[in-house]
Order: sequence, then C-alpha cells, then structure tokens
Amino acid sequence: MSGKFNKLIDNVAVESPLEICVSEVKSSVVRPISITMRTPGDDAELAMGFLHGEGLFSELNPHDLQQIEVDVFEEENRVLVHIPECINVDEEYLTRNFYTTSSCGVCGKSSINALLLTVPPTSLISKEKIKPDLINTLKQKMQNQQSDFEATGGTHASAIFNSAGDLMHFAEDVGRHNAMDKVIGSAIVAGNLSEADIVYFSGRTSFELVQKSAMAGISTIVCIGAPSSLAIDLANSFDMLLIGFHRNSQFNVYSAYERIFVTKD
Amino acid sequence: MSGKFNKLIDNVAVESPLEICVSEVKSSVVRPISITMRTPGDDAELAMGFLHGEGLFSELNPHDLQQIEVDVFEEENRVLVHIPECINVDEEYLTRNFYTTSSCGVCGKSSINALLLTVPPTSLISKEKIKPDLINTLKQKMQNQQSDFEATGGTHASAIFNSAGDLMHFAEDVGRHNAMDKVIGSAIVAGNLSEADIVYFSGRTSFELVQKSAMAGISTIVCIGAPSSLAIDLANSFDMLLIGFHRNSQFNVYSAYERIFVTKD
Repeated sequence: MSGKFNKLIDNVAVESPLEICVSEVKSSVVRPISITMRTPGDDAELAMGFLHGEGLFSELNPHDLQQIEVDVFEEENRVLVHIPECINVDEEYLTRNFYTTSSCGVCGKSSINALLLTVPPTSLISKEKIKPDLINTLKQKMQNQQSDFEATGGTHASAIFNSAGDLMHFAEDVGRHNAMDKVIGSAIVAGNLSEADIVYFSGRTSFELVQKSAMAGISTIVCIGAPSSLAIDLANSFDMLLIGFHRNSQFNVYSAYERIFVTKD
Repeated sequence: MSGKFNKLIDNVAVESPLEICVSEVKSSVVRPISITMRTPGDDAELAMGFLHGEGLFSELNPHDLQQIEVDVFEEENRVLVHIPECINVDEEYLTRNFYTTSSCGVCGKSSINALLLTVPPTSLISKEKIKPDLINTLKQKMQNQQSDFEATGGTHASAIFNSAGDLMHFAEDVGRHNAMDKVIGSAIVAGNLSEADIVYFSGRTSFELVQKSAMAGISTIVCIGAPSSLAIDLANSFDMLLIGFHRNSQFNVYSAYERIFVTKD
C-alpha cells in the first residue's frame, strides 16, 4: 500500500572479505594472494578451488591435492594454504600476484593474452553425449539445496553433478565466482573432482566461469541465465557443452550441439 | 516440447577484456592499472568512473575533471587516461596497483583495512528526504532504456537520477560494477556529477557498489535485488539511504529510514 511503512526483520546475505594466503612448506614464507568478498563458510574449499582455477595445482594428482593443509582463521577472515614441497610453485606467479588476483579471476593477469591462455589441456574435456531429460532434472536438485537464497534472495548458487546427474557438491555465495570455487574446492577435498561432469549455475555464465570449469575438467555447463559472448567462444574452443536460459524444461545450447541427444520425430 | 531441437539466432551480451592504463602528463610513463571484463562501449567513461571510485581524482573539481583526456584504442581493447599535471597521483597507488585492481574493486587493496577505508568525507552525502512516490517512478525510467537486456537477458543496468527523479545517465554492461563506473564516468564527462542524487541498480547491491556511490557523493541507492550485509553496514555508516527489493511499488529500506517521507494514517 502506498506510503505504508512497516518495520520487519529481514535476512540478508552475509558479505565479508577473505584474504587467501599461501605458505610454501619449504620456505615457510607467507604470501597474500587475493582478497575476495565472500559469504563466510567453506573458506578452505573456496581457497583450494580458487588456487586450482589459477592453475597452481596443475602438477598434482587427486590424492596429493587431498593432502594439502589449509588453516582457517575465521575471526581474521583469513585462510592459509600450505603448499607442499612436491609442488614447484611458479615464483613469478606468487610475486606478480601479490595482492593482485581476486575472485573475479581477471585482474592480476600480466596481459590480456595471459588471461586467455590460462586454460587446461583439451584432453581433460569429456566428449560424452548427454540426454535433455537428465539436464532437466538438475535445476530442481540444485534448488532443493538453496537455503541461503530462500532466506535472503541475495546469493548465487553452484552445483556439480556426475555424468549420471547425481548432485556431488553445492555452494551458495554472494559472488558467483566464489560459489564455483567452493564447489570445485569441495570436490578436491573429497577427492572426487575427476567424477565431476556437469556444473550448474543459478545465474549467468561469464568467461571466467567457463575458464574455471575447463580447469576442473568439467565438460558441461548449464545456467539459468544468459552466457556472455566470450563464455561461448571459450566453450566452443574446448568443445564444452554450454547451455543457458534453462527454464521450464527448455534451454538454449550455445556450443557442442552434437553432445546433446536429439530425438528425431 | 521434450527432445525437440530448433536452430535459432540468439543475441548475446558481449563480454571482452578492457585494459585501463594511465599516463602522467609530466612523466609520460604509461602504467596499466586494471583489466576488467566489460561490454564494449563507453570505455572512456568506464575508465573515468573506475578511477574516480578508486579515489584517484579526489583533489579535482568538476571543471578540472572534464579536462582529462582519454584515448580509446578500440581494436586493442585498451584505454589511456592522461593524468594532468595538477593532480598529484599517489605514486604508491600507481605502482602497488600495477595490474592489481579490477572492476571488482576489491583486489589490489593492500589490506582489508585499506579496503574499508576507501570512502569519502561524510560531508558529501546529502541528508534530504525522499518521497516513496518518486522512488516508484525510477524503475520504469531505467527499464525504458534497457535495450541490451531486452535483446540478450545478459546485462546489468545502472542509472543515476537527480533529486527530482530525472534520469541523468544510464549504462548496461555484463558487469554490474562496470555499469556503475560507466554512469559515474558519464556524469564526470558531462560535468554534472554533483547533481547526481540517486543511483538505481538492476540487480543486487554489494559493498563495492555502495563504496562507489559514496565516492560519487550519491546519497540514495535503490536496487531491484537484495543488498549484502556489508553493503548495509557501509550505507549505515554514511547515513546513505539503501533500498532493496523494489518490486510492484513496494521496497525494503535498509538504512537511513528517517530519509523516507512516511505517510501517517
């Protein structure tokens, strides 16, 4: 009613800075890598997923990845990732990125070319076909988990699924890139990232989200919103299946059309 | 219909990297400051708005701001902002932020405290009251301009209004922070930033969007989505009026309630 003013309690999505630091076991030097505005919770997973997306762990197998220790200093809004001796961290990365990369994943790159080059070997990407009926089951499985969004309307969600469409990991965050980092980090901690086949986003798909998916070897991306032009370009270049505007059992396919089972009638 | 596949042309929001560089007239050294993923267009305004939000121009009056020259190299996705001799640029800012800040506005800060300190003198913020009826006219005025969103469903919008509710500047972009930088930059170029009183966002309000509004001296923020906890905290600390979930002539007021004219009945 116009002009009426009621005092009510409203739940809001928590946004708070997190400083991601790394420490090399062999040198014990602590280096701040990034500050991101995130929703507190799953901070260790966020840090692991973020660094994985940056390519820091590309030499490690799933078992080694699980051995990485992360200290979470909740009150200080800080996490410290201990880089084991078996990893040869690119010294230039650590110094160049001193306070330079963020969850947006774009800044801190030394050039636009470098930005476009942070991508994995194409061999990681699956070429398996996927049924539309399976895609149509994913949205509800994710939405069943979205308690923060239900309460606040202020968070993005990401979920990863295996090729059978079983939900593996789920996260909510004020930042969509953080939500993605959290699900990837959760899979790393659980040791099952290699089973992740599909990622589902509550919003739009940016270049960076495709990049993070590619780094994680995830071959199919489905989102409720729109993909950007560069997201489509990158998905095409890796034969990743990129699906957008998933609404009411309909969706748009923006790349790798041949990976969808089409019914001929 | 399940299993049906139609080939159609779809318009998508363009996402492309932009490198923002500055050059001090007195030294003629060109320094890259930030890479942001943006929708091409209004690149000079984006750069000006971004640097204004970073506090780089805090010593300048509107007339001086209008004299700043910006070269746009469209094919290279690069802009070069010429910093006039009258500005004493913080050398530490320019070097510390070498490729370190992004449109997310968070990374590149040397500490979490520094992040929270990048705010303007409170004297800039208006204490004027505002009528709910005026707020209810803003959404339609902005939506009338949203041609990119209409075509793609993939862009955010920002609009700034004067205290009478007249639309002053409008921008769309794949990044909501870019859209905000573009409207602020447009007002700087037009020389009317001091008249900007209200900013309207198509999505959610983050800490950073409140920070950019505060730096621009804008006292009222209205958004269609949810504000984050830190956005509310910052708005409260500056007595800025923060309105969210503006839908069907209803909205939630999260700060500075006393600045809303309330009808008693």
